[in-house]
Amino acid sequence: MEPMTQPAHIPRGVADYFWQEAAQRRELETRLLETFRSWGYTDVIPPTFEYADSLSTQASPELQEEMYRFLDRDGSTLALRPEFTTPVARLVGTRLHDWPMPQRFCYAGSVFRYTEPQAGRQREFWQAGVELIGAPGPAGDAEVLALTVAGLEAVGLADFRLVLGQMGYFRGLLADLALEPAQEAALRQAIERHSEPELAEFLRTVPLRTQQRRTVEALPELNGRDPEAIMAQADLHSLNYAMFKALENLRAIYRVLEAHGVAHLVDLDLTEIRNLGYYTGITFEALVPGLGFNVASGGRYDDLIGHFGPPQPAVGVALGLDRLLLAWRGQSGPKQAPRPVPPERLVDAGNDPRAVAAVNAWRRQGMRVVLDVTGRSGLDLWRLARQMGAAQALVWTGEGFDVYAGENEAEQPVDFIRVEAP
Amino acid sequence: MEPMTQPAHIPRGVADYFWQEAAQRRELETRLLETFRSWGYTDVIPPTFEYADSLSTQASPELQEEMYRFLDRDGSTLALRPEFTTPVARLVGTRLHDWPMPQRFCYAGSVFRYTEPQAGRQREFWQAGVELIGAPGPAGDAEVLALTVAGLEAVGLADFRLVLGQMGYFRGLLADLALEPAQEAALRQAIERHSEPELAEFLRTVPLRTQQRRTVEALPELNGRDPEAIMAQADLHSLNYAMFKALENLRAIYRVLEAHGVAHLVDLDLTEIRNLGYYTGITFEALVPGLGFNVASGGRYDDLIGHFGPPQPAVGVALGLDRLLLAWRGQSGPKQAPRPVPPERLVDAGNDPRAVAAVNAWRRQGMRVVLDVTGRSGLDLWRLARQMGAAQALVWTGEGFDVYAGENEAEQPVDFIRVEAP
Repeated sequence: MEPMTQPAHIPRGVADYFWQEAAQRRELETRLLETFRSWGYTDVIPPTFEYADSLSTQASPELQEEMYRFLDRDGSTLALRPEFTTPVARLVGTRLHDWPMPQRFCYAGSVFRYTEPQAGRQREFWQAGVELIGAPGPAGDAEVLALTVAGLEAVGLADFRLVLGQMGYFRGLLADLALEPAQEAALRQAIERHSEPELAEFLRTVPLRTQQRRTVEALPELNGRDPEAIMAQADLHSLNYAMFKALENLRAIYRVLEAHGVAHLVDLDLTEIRNLGYYTGITFEALVPGLGFNVASGGRYDDLIGHFGPPQPAVGVALGLDRLLLAWRGQSGPKQAPRPVPPERLVDAGNDPRAVAAVNAWRRQGMRVVLDVTGRSGLDLWRLARQMGAAQALVWTGEGFDVYAGENEAEQPVDFIRVEAP
Repeated sequence: MEPMTQPAHIPRGVADYFWQEAAQRRELETRLLETFRSWGYTDVIPPTFEYADSLSTQASPELQEEMYRFLDRDGSTLALRPEFTTPVARLVGTRLHDWPMPQRFCYAGSVFRYTEPQAGRQREFWQAGVELIGAPGPAGDAEVLALTVAGLEAVGLADFRLVLGQMGYFRGLLADLALEPAQEAALRQAIERHSEPELAEFLRTVPLRTQQRRTVEALPELNGRDPEAIMAQADLHSLNYAMFKALENLRAIYRVLEAHGVAHLVDLDLTEIRNLGYYTGITFEALVPGLGFNVASGGRYDDLIGHFGPPQPAVGVALGLDRLLLAWRGQSGPKQAPRPVPPERLVDAGNDPRAVAAVNAWRRQGMRVVLDVTGRSGLDLWRLARQMGAAQALVWTGEGFDVYAGENEAEQPVDFIRVEAP
């Protein structure tokens, strides 16, 4: 996670995860997948690499530039997956289109992008997410938003907000303005950067009708924590049916979010217009106070699956595991120095089948128990146990285990665990 | 898994896993990791790709040929990991050598080899395994063997055997024979292939002392289900201290395997001499009746970590998830046609927060519940539920849920679940 301390024996942008950090990573992944499954989403595992052309479908120029490409021995160009949505869209479009809709898929795994490593993201980083396919209505959008909240809560994140946009509103505005490409780019950049000077310059140089001008001027204000008020404002500035439809869609989504009990966590932001090429309806991201990047992002992409087979509406979200780990650590105290995950018990079984059977029974109950392989016993074993962070050292006596435990350097066993004869 | 039916929209040798098959894959991986952790092994997650030179350390020429290589943008050659042992050895050798030994690591993930796709193995395939580092004695070898048994049992495999070899015996023989390289290759090939004609040809053309000749002649018989008898035979044919030591080591390992209660599952095979370059002591594999390949393989590699840092003895095993799935399916009935994982309940919540809250409570208890997003209700909902394989369709009434269930096309709800007012 800290590129500056990256050791030189592995490439820049990738990392080894081990001990507590690897355990936390797996735990997060497991909790997210279990949450997704309980909502009826089923696992999908696409290949780590596939045809670069396939992965490039509807990918932005930036994402295409960031893909790790390489040649297969048959001459075709492969790439490591930079995200999961396109592979899942390909799978549904080519093979699963005849099965009942809606279909629900969840995934977890690493993705690869050739970018400058940054806090919360390496060149190989981990995502977990869902795709809801074949559900065109607001109930589908709301489900994915509510499931994002459920996922963030399942990993123990206490403080976060979702920010919801709707591409249709800005697309409708663009359709009405009918700008030259350079003008459209200038407007998009001004809105994306929230730049007042750039917007003023746009308004100064581009001739607009009065109502159009008022809408463009009002746009930067159309975001915040009171969706009702924002939608009322946005309504006043709607120029056509597309913009009206986008607001209708948002109102319907908020009604379902109310039923899910999560509407109060979802801010509205009609200036959120990134990924214009990819998303066709709502877009959203999850933000955590004090973290300079989102921990989840998603949206509706009704045009992607049609590139691979019969068109299907779809909406999904990807959560960033690396970033969630940073956020989760930030909200649960200071970062700890790396250390091994300690076992609960270190055991000298004296090579007796009865002792090993007792150890295996504890393991099956979920206890972490290490059987000593160093030949230590007694106080020597207890010293090694404390070095490992184990709570107890157990020494087989023939009828049970002498227990060494406690903070001070016990010279004697403090307890005895009797094992019944078989 | 069936290369012949591989669709052309993804490269040969990789696959999409979804529905029941993906769920089984995840389930197997989870059970194996949980077993490893209960024995005190902690998760390690190495990068998916790293420097090809690093991954090539001690790799056989075949494995080096099979690696997926590609250029990093800084000009260095990267490769997708073909296995996990070398990355873990690199991690321990370069960064963890100052921590107390022994260290225990477990992993699960995909590896990549450019080979002809075959039953039970694609070019991207899944491994789960452990590395026990810093434990030179037979207790370490026995622990990894016993943990392999525990892993196979944890995934529900009922019928399997381990076959155990010891490189030291054959290495000792080779040292005594002092052959020309071509002669040594001929002997190794004859033994590896269990070829009587090739062995006869070797004995005919290579001049040996009488005792040497008797040992070479006896070698093909040194395998089977009675380790005591085999070791007694092998003792008679030992030519030097190295061969004697290998047998001593095996005897000590079997004593610990007895304590683990798994010795009866471990056959001895002193003709097992594959991977001569990699392993330094025991080697073993797990075999399942009727399956033409091993489902796990491992051994001791005391020379690998020294390439990266201070030398450390080490022993490990990798289980093949794809092959385990095939074996597990073979032992649990015929292969089923692919189908989605059905939810338990499909619910029309009528957009009422109380209904959604009840659904979320069931989900938190681990139940798979789908909230309808299609606007269906009543018999329409029940029809969709049956299409999805769900056991029940629930329709919110204001005080609770009407329950549709059962085999026949119920025209009426068959039950009612009351939900208390909050």
